[in-house]
Amino acid sequence: MTRSRISRVEVTPVAFRDPPLLNVVGVHQPWALRAIVEIHTDSGLTGLAETYADETHLARLAAVAAAVGGHDPYDLHGLRRLVTDVLGRETGGAGASFGGMLDVTSAVDTVFSPFEVACLDLQGRESGRPVVDLLGGMVRDRVPFSGYLFYKWAGHPGEEFDEWGEALTPDQVVAQARRMVDGWGFGSLKLKGGVLPPEDECAAIEALRAEFPDLPLRLDPNGAWSPETSLKVAERLAGVVEYLEDPTPGIEGMARVSAGTELTLATNMCVIAFEHLPPAVAANAVQVVLSDHHLWGGLRRTALLAGITETFGMGLSMHSNSHLGVSLAAMVHLAAATPNLTYACDTHYPWKTQDLVRPGSLDFVDGSVAVPTGVGLGVELDRDALALMHEQYLTCGVRRREDTVYMQSIDRSFTPNTGRW
Amino acid sequence: MTRSRISRVEVTPVAFRDPPLLNVVGVHQPWALRAIVEIHTDSGLTGLAETYADETHLARLAAVAAAVGGHDPYDLHGLRRLVTDVLGRETGGAGASFGGMLDVTSAVDTVFSPFEVACLDLQGRESGRPVVDLLGGMVRDRVPFSGYLFYKWAGHPGEEFDEWGEALTPDQVVAQARRMVDGWGFGSLKLKGGVLPPEDECAAIEALRAEFPDLPLRLDPNGAWSPETSLKVAERLAGVVEYLEDPTPGIEGMARVSAGTELTLATNMCVIAFEHLPPAVAANAVQVVLSDHHLWGGLRRTALLAGITETFGMGLSMHSNSHLGVSLAAMVHLAAATPNLTYACDTHYPWKTQDLVRPGSLDFVDGSVAVPTGVGLGVELDRDALALMHEQYLTCGVRRREDTVYMQSIDRSFTPNTGRW
Repeated sequence: MTRSRISRVEVTPVAFRDPPLLNVVGVHQPWALRAIVEIHTDSGLTGLAETYADETHLARLAAVAAAVGGHDPYDLHGLRRLVTDVLGRETGGAGASFGGMLDVTSAVDTVFSPFEVACLDLQGRESGRPVVDLLGGMVRDRVPFSGYLFYKWAGHPGEEFDEWGEALTPDQVVAQARRMVDGWGFGSLKLKGGVLPPEDECAAIEALRAEFPDLPLRLDPNGAWSPETSLKVAERLAGVVEYLEDPTPGIEGMARVSAGTELTLATNMCVIAFEHLPPAVAANAVQVVLSDHHLWGGLRRTALLAGITETFGMGLSMHSNSHLGVSLAAMVHLAAATPNLTYACDTHYPWKTQDLVRPGSLDFVDGSVAVPTGVGLGVELDRDALALMHEQYLTCGVRRREDTVYMQSIDRSFTPNTGRW
Repeated sequence: MTRSRISRVEVTPVAFRDPPLLNVVGVHQPWALRAIVEIHTDSGLTGLAETYADETHLARLAAVAAAVGGHDPYDLHGLRRLVTDVLGRETGGAGASFGGMLDVTSAVDTVFSPFEVACLDLQGRESGRPVVDLLGGMVRDRVPFSGYLFYKWAGHPGEEFDEWGEALTPDQVVAQARRMVDGWGFGSLKLKGGVLPPEDECAAIEALRAEFPDLPLRLDPNGAWSPETSLKVAERLAGVVEYLEDPTPGIEGMARVSAGTELTLATNMCVIAFEHLPPAVAANAVQVVLSDHHLWGGLRRTALLAGITETFGMGLSMHSNSHLGVSLAAMVHLAAATPNLTYACDTHYPWKTQDLVRPGSLDFVDGSVAVPTGVGLGVELDRDALALMHEQYLTCGVRRREDTVYMQSIDRSFTPNTGRW
């Protein structure tokens, strides 16, 4: 049997409209960026992945893409060594920062991730199996997601209002949630906080609880609070939220909160790389880790994270940035193959208005996505959409995610709310 | 593409001659037992694995084998659920004990292991890939093993002496090591201790050091010593052994030793299941964990163990029981796909005088085995040898490993040396 080799890699940055979603460091820019990675083999197959598209990240992807020709798509360890070597030469092993909130000291896992995902897509296409099978098999045939609520403006300054409207009061947040639940069927809800004073955000959560008495709720202020404030919120929201995500910055701060409350604490800020696990475990800083294959080095390494959280008695959930259908497919395969992923996953998917995968393979029914049944990731690119969204990338002017800079272009006095309250 | 299903499973217990190797709980019986698991698919493929063959284990394997028909060999998560369900019904979830030294509170991982390995062999045969590729690719094309030295009698009582002769003095241990090194090319040596008083075993290690000044050495008394004695030995052997394995029983005892010495401590006794990792990490009880896919639930779960040890800053080595070529092949594929397996692996392979895989795919050169290049595990059964060794099983009379019982049949006053010195 032929053992195929990588012949060529294309990295295509794309842009799509993003609503003015508010968070602790500012507000989403009018355009969200992603990159589509296509790995071609000498046997004529193509594997897909989706990743970040900040210009620093694109340069690193390009450097690896130029070096990966001839590589065996089954040799993931060798691919990771190659990424490590290329990044060492190109950047001196510098770290990476995403969205002003996620900082890692090494870029290896974030750069490796799309190559690994595309190689698994290739392995699935070559062996006639969906990616979920390459990850150990399907433990659930539908993956539940949570409805991701945001404080937001009615529209970006100088632009038309988007269809979601303003959400700055509890009533408006409830209306947004109603639209999410009615339109997508979500069975749980997460509110991105860190925008308003904590009492206002607690009021929004309580309004959600009154409107949706049976839905699990989460609040994620992205480290906007002191440990003391976090403990007050934890007392107020005990029995109301299923978990509180990153109330305060850092492992030490989270450990102080954790020691003072029975409320489950989750993180996608203080534990976002393997090196953060030992200190977090030692300090009992968090009870739930949000996985993210884009950050954690692909699907197999995120499965490792899952095994670590299970071994050390922690829960597992899944994080999301603004993303398109290729990422969603990878998230669904991974979640479907992860026995201890017992929380609904985050997704920004409802907030986008365009996609670049052909329709039909990723539909939300009752807030869940059925695992695609085709080979590999089970999605195909719509090449017209890809070309259009790449054209949007070329003309939109955004080259990196800068929520704070963009916010300050609107409100010069703005500074991030990190640790503010 | 057809997705094959399991049609039938054969479990064949076999027996092969085992020399009178001494250890902390007694002496190896004249026959060692193993079981060969063959999983057949409706597409005509057969996957292989090798596991323990104590009668309790065989009954559990048979119960799973009877229930697994129709299962997809890619659905490893589902297979593990099935094993859990079957064992829950059959044994009430009881644990397992191997060789009087290894006790686990759940038999799931030990029973699941051969089914997982055979399914990975099937996946490799179906996709045309060696198992090492299914585990992320080859990080080394040859896997180094250590020469495994034992105190031993010249022969089992009432039987002819084996070719190795007696080894009870430092000189005899050195002669055994010389034979191992000259015959097999091993580049490191491990002495199974716990047999003689610690000063005698230290003298044997020092004699080995004098004879083989450049070879890494290990000593494994299987918990024969108190923490105080362990610390004295650690002082004596500092700079002489690369690690000391299980000097004293239990995580607490190992942590006491660890706190008092800079010498690296390894274990295959106090950390042999995932549940042992959190307390061992918290206590800093060991610096090296010996993996063993037979105990840890197969190749993928042992890869998880590897990722955990890497994440938590521990080293990784590999344990062995008496085994044949199917186990050796699985060990080699796993070791070749494990980046942080930087210690030479243990193996009992030189001590056996028969095998049941066709020759040619697993040769020791310079103490290392090249990774088989064929599909799956890359080994095939010699059916005549399998039949002969199964006949030996039927007639040998041994039905479980009982080193202590057998020793007491020779020396009625014997009690295990655990914690003796």
